[in-house]
Amino acid sequence: MTMRAAVVRHGNVVIENRPVPEPGPGQVLVRTVACGICGSDLHLVRHGARMMQMVRDLGGEPDNLVDGLIPGHEFVATIEAFGSQTRQTLRRGQRIVAPPFLRVGGAPVSIGASSLTTGAYAEYFLLDEASLLPVPETARTEAAALTEPVAIALHAVNRSGIKAGDLAVVIGCGPIGLAVITVLAERGIHSVIASDLSEVRRTVAAQLGASSVVDPRAADLWREVGPAPVHIFECTGARGMIHDLILRSPGRSRITVAGISSDSESILPMVAIAKEIDLCFVSFYSADEFAQALAMVCREHFPAAAFVTGQVGLAAAAAQFPGLPGDSHIKVLIEPARG
Amino acid sequence: MTMRAAVVRHGNVVIENRPVPEPGPGQVLVRTVACGICGSDLHLVRHGARMMQMVRDLGGEPDNLVDGLIPGHEFVATIEAFGSQTRQTLRRGQRIVAPPFLRVGGAPVSIGASSLTTGAYAEYFLLDEASLLPVPETARTEAAALTEPVAIALHAVNRSGIKAGDLAVVIGCGPIGLAVITVLAERGIHSVIASDLSEVRRTVAAQLGASSVVDPRAADLWREVGPAPVHIFECTGARGMIHDLILRSPGRSRITVAGISSDSESILPMVAIAKEIDLCFVSFYSADEFAQALAMVCREHFPAAAFVTGQVGLAAAAAQFPGLPGDSHIKVLIEPARG
Repeated sequence: MTMRAAVVRHGNVVIENRPVPEPGPGQVLVRTVACGICGSDLHLVRHGARMMQMVRDLGGEPDNLVDGLIPGHEFVATIEAFGSQTRQTLRRGQRIVAPPFLRVGGAPVSIGASSLTTGAYAEYFLLDEASLLPVPETARTEAAALTEPVAIALHAVNRSGIKAGDLAVVIGCGPIGLAVITVLAERGIHSVIASDLSEVRRTVAAQLGASSVVDPRAADLWREVGPAPVHIFECTGARGMIHDLILRSPGRSRITVAGISSDSESILPMVAIAKEIDLCFVSFYSADEFAQALAMVCREHFPAAAFVTGQVGLAAAAAQFPGLPGDSHIKVLIEPARG
Repeated sequence: MTMRAAVVRHGNVVIENRPVPEPGPGQVLVRTVACGICGSDLHLVRHGARMMQMVRDLGGEPDNLVDGLIPGHEFVATIEAFGSQTRQTLRRGQRIVAPPFLRVGGAPVSIGASSLTTGAYAEYFLLDEASLLPVPETARTEAAALTEPVAIALHAVNRSGIKAGDLAVVIGCGPIGLAVITVLAERGIHSVIASDLSEVRRTVAAQLGASSVVDPRAADLWREVGPAPVHIFECTGARGMIHDLILRSPGRSRITVAGISSDSESILPMVAIAKEIDLCFVSFYSADEFAQALAMVCREHFPAAAFVTGQVGLAAAAAQFPGLPGDSHIKVLIEPARG
């Protein structure tokens, strides 16, 4: 049996027919209902080969051949078939989410960023049964598809150590920055200054709970921030941003870096030392944080519609890929059933 | 009345006669008993002009003319004379220490790193009466002179968040690295791996409480450290060290950066993100931490003799300055009474 998948080829994605994977012991074959396009997917498609070379240069042994890889790690799927040695406590057809990892030879391998696994830019892929979290019947698929980026944001906020009454500054209002704002609002943090170049994104940031939004080309963010220590969430990955934040942020600020940048960055340690800056680099959530994120996105008032601005089939995603999500979108979902 | 002072001139220090400063309102004139030579003093003397230019390049307005500045901020002194509006609760002749700041126009200005104040590489200098801490009669001057570097170390350990049972890795066993080891021992942290190029310093590190010492040219430090998260204390300021620590340290490690480097450093944020590294830059202690450091160095068992390897007069300090402390010394004290 074959399926359609969007596959990385030469810095782009193309639709290919692939064999439907066979679930091994403890595994489940799932059918993709929706999969968000993440900024890191674009990064992987565009710069993946160079990133893997960097890993090799650093003495690592990446298990990735980027060419031929199937991206996709922000998925909602339904259970299609069970492998051997499964407990089958969930029924076939049940909507599920899961942290994007599959055990291969006993070790977790990322789904959507490794050539050893099938990502969710495909009609079907494999998950470990033990990792499945059922999506409540009442929850919309569009909301559940945000579990993964919200888990990233929730983890970033947890790692930041921010407390009620603290001032937060969110740099970049893409999906992660907006998810950080949403998590901060949920935590009762009401002083949130958000910065983004895009008016659309600033407007959404204000809707989601930012108390103030700044266009950094038009106003001095740091004037608005003031001199007291703040919690900064770097959600752009833009070149030079970490250096700039060290220079411009108030002394004793904590900078939580969630924005992915594959280039080397130049910083001035002496300035960071004199200002007693904390740089906290974050990536993956715990299983608990992922489950909390699912609970959060499934609540009735969760503003999923502010995030999901596009829904496309696999073919349309492949056709538009290098331009997605683009400035006019926040989060685009690939829904293979759309074609 | 004039006094002798060691003054920065053209990347070195020379002895000059200077007027003895007059204590203003709330100030006290003190006489230097001993002043430690800090690595940052050498840095200031050698690279100060370039550092000030960097501050200007960054848009700052340094109050320092490095040429003509009198260094010295690790002092023990005796009270010589009181200015007006002083409470005079301590007697003349009392040995004191104090955090190295003097209020000038209402704002604290650093002593020993600003041309607006007189540093302790001089026979006399000024302090705010309110900042004085008396040195107990039973304490040796050599121990009390270590209050400031021990306060730096105590602050670094406090900022690191290390707890009993955690593994510490101390990179660089100069005075700050050794003081960190001493503070860790005091806190009941018994697993401390220390790394230094110098055999002398490694030996002292082991005496002070390091459970293991590594010559990084002869052995792989990270093999010894193992895969679990650790608390790393960067006490070298060596170029490329932060980058190297991000690459080589175990995932989820916390790197507390106390080593001063005035160059820009290149880091790979993607590696730091993937490993969830915390970079915590530290400089100055609080007044409480300074008082705790004084109490610590004044305890009978405090190993001051392991730190203080040389005691010289002002003239000898100036003559040898670019070479002090050098590899054969840990901490050299300037004692103006020696000449």
